[in-house]
Amino acid sequence: MAQKRMGAQTIVFGKPPKIIASATLAGPKERDGNFGDYIDTIVDEPMMQEATAEKAERKMLYQVIQESLAKTALQESDINYYIGGDLLNQIISSSYCARDLGIPFIGIYGACSSMVEGLGLGAVMVDGDFADNVLIATSSHYHASERQFRYPIELNIQHKQTSQWTVSGAAAGILTHQGEGPKITHITFGKVVDLGVKQPDLLGAAMAPAASDTLCQHFADTNTTPGDYDLILTGDLGSMGQQLFVDLVKEAGYTLGTKHKDTGADFYKPHQRAGAGGSGCACIALGIMGYVIKEMYQGKYHKILALATGALFSPLSYQQGDSISGIAHGVVIDNT
Amino acid sequence: MAQKRMGAQTIVFGKPPKIIASATLAGPKERDGNFGDYIDTIVDEPMMQEATAEKAERKMLYQVIQESLAKTALQESDINYYIGGDLLNQIISSSYCARDLGIPFIGIYGACSSMVEGLGLGAVMVDGDFADNVLIATSSHYHASERQFRYPIELNIQHKQTSQWTVSGAAAGILTHQGEGPKITHITFGKVVDLGVKQPDLLGAAMAPAASDTLCQHFADTNTTPGDYDLILTGDLGSMGQQLFVDLVKEAGYTLGTKHKDTGADFYKPHQRAGAGGSGCACIALGIMGYVIKEMYQGKYHKILALATGALFSPLSYQQGDSISGIAHGVVIDNT
Repeated sequence: MAQKRMGAQTIVFGKPPKIIASATLAGPKERDGNFGDYIDTIVDEPMMQEATAEKAERKMLYQVIQESLAKTALQESDINYYIGGDLLNQIISSSYCARDLGIPFIGIYGACSSMVEGLGLGAVMVDGDFADNVLIATSSHYHASERQFRYPIELNIQHKQTSQWTVSGAAAGILTHQGEGPKITHITFGKVVDLGVKQPDLLGAAMAPAASDTLCQHFADTNTTPGDYDLILTGDLGSMGQQLFVDLVKEAGYTLGTKHKDTGADFYKPHQRAGAGGSGCACIALGIMGYVIKEMYQGKYHKILALATGALFSPLSYQQGDSISGIAHGVVIDNT
Repeated sequence: MAQKRMGAQTIVFGKPPKIIASATLAGPKERDGNFGDYIDTIVDEPMMQEATAEKAERKMLYQVIQESLAKTALQESDINYYIGGDLLNQIISSSYCARDLGIPFIGIYGACSSMVEGLGLGAVMVDGDFADNVLIATSSHYHASERQFRYPIELNIQHKQTSQWTVSGAAAGILTHQGEGPKITHITFGKVVDLGVKQPDLLGAAMAPAASDTLCQHFADTNTTPGDYDLILTGDLGSMGQQLFVDLVKEAGYTLGTKHKDTGADFYKPHQRAGAGGSGCACIALGIMGYVIKEMYQGKYHKILALATGALFSPLSYQQGDSISGIAHGVVIDNT
């Protein structure tokens, strides 16, 4: 078996890459939510003085990348690869950012799991001596996602209580061997799991089986249990999906208890009327690059497992009667 | 600098992964083109007995993956990762295939550059001891792409001479250290380059600057010239894009001459009325996994450089006035 593998699906890094810098940016609704204090930059106007939501998302992403670079001594030209993706068709937010940055670009698509998919690939690049410095970034925007996946917001369609609210924001992190920062020690790339959910208003339920699958596989591969982590952070399952996830994990023999937190379910406050919670690539990305990293520096968390979930479908696949598949990638971040 | 790097953008593999199996599948129009004899499986009916083109594309992809596995002693469960992407929104062809395969999935988006982006990441995984066996696959479908990017074919809109024709087909390859096969020795991941082309009927022209940029960077990084390769295969620039590419490369000081071939420009025969040539993820994927690999086994080619190009845009970005960005990733395949 390849030397850097552990069990069926997990990679263990011999020289764990460090997250030497992270940056987060979001809008006013996100500021008012539960993670507001952990966001570096709040923009007052989610449209970012742009004519369209798509251009606004791109601007958020570009800005957060610049902010992550500014926290290091690195220039754009020092970054070997920019690994990123987003929810928009043909990942235009990321591609146009890559054009403006001039950094070699590796485009990924993992829906809302993009941040962890990127961290995994980036850590592979750095640990394997294929790169010195890698930038990982992702973004999402409520207006852009709503009109692509559901309805244009101008229609003022009432949200279902089971729907989630796409986080408008962006997050970036820089991986390298140099400097100091929390380490990426393991990545468990997940399988696509589909239990037949067909409603795009129930994305949390569609993704919960994948999250459970990857988590249990990670535990088995690494011979760990919930007790080995200070936090198991999922996202973005939302309030309904997280309950299903906890039940599935319990059926598999693991009790998560207070160790578990879902960025989707926790993102907004009840009075913010965000249905089942936050969603979008930025949701768990802000959770990891904002909440987790900052609390690690404060000493609250030492070792965490973040499971980023993605709903793999398109409006067209939905219209053609396909069910919504889910995927989850898990990453261990260690600051001990 | 990281040990496995060479110059600014190129990775050099210490233990070059081998392509131990490849498989190709396409429809009747592709059979009648210039690469027809190199395609393993021809399906008579591009709709694959499915109700929609999207489901047909997915079926082609699934079938070609099974055919690639059947050429090895490996089972699905022996494959550590399936790295793949396609042109459809939210890469549904690849995601649903991954679901049906049950192999951990790393979704990528590089438009028509997907095969080489995937080969690069797969080779990183295998060379770096992160995986034993990796599957790379991609697909495209004329009907599905036309209606997503241009017009539904039922409208019978006349094609421009500068337009390219999306190849209906799929290709897969398996990378490992075990067994025998052509080796992947270098990968040059490209930058996003945009000279301001805005017409989706001129994708070759939009991508040519990126192809030239990556090629010249590859030459500089590896201290090679066209003379070091038996073939420099681009795709899918088409007849107009390839001329621009050759001119740009010449301006940079390199004469390609007969060493250069473009899968897009060469894919169909003139009487097939395919405009400026073939396109789609399957175009250069069939070129590499069909034409190149088979001719390597026949002894015609020993060392080639394949530059896969992608046009990074969406119908929405076009409608919003954005130009069409291009990217190109280059891979060296060596059978000496």
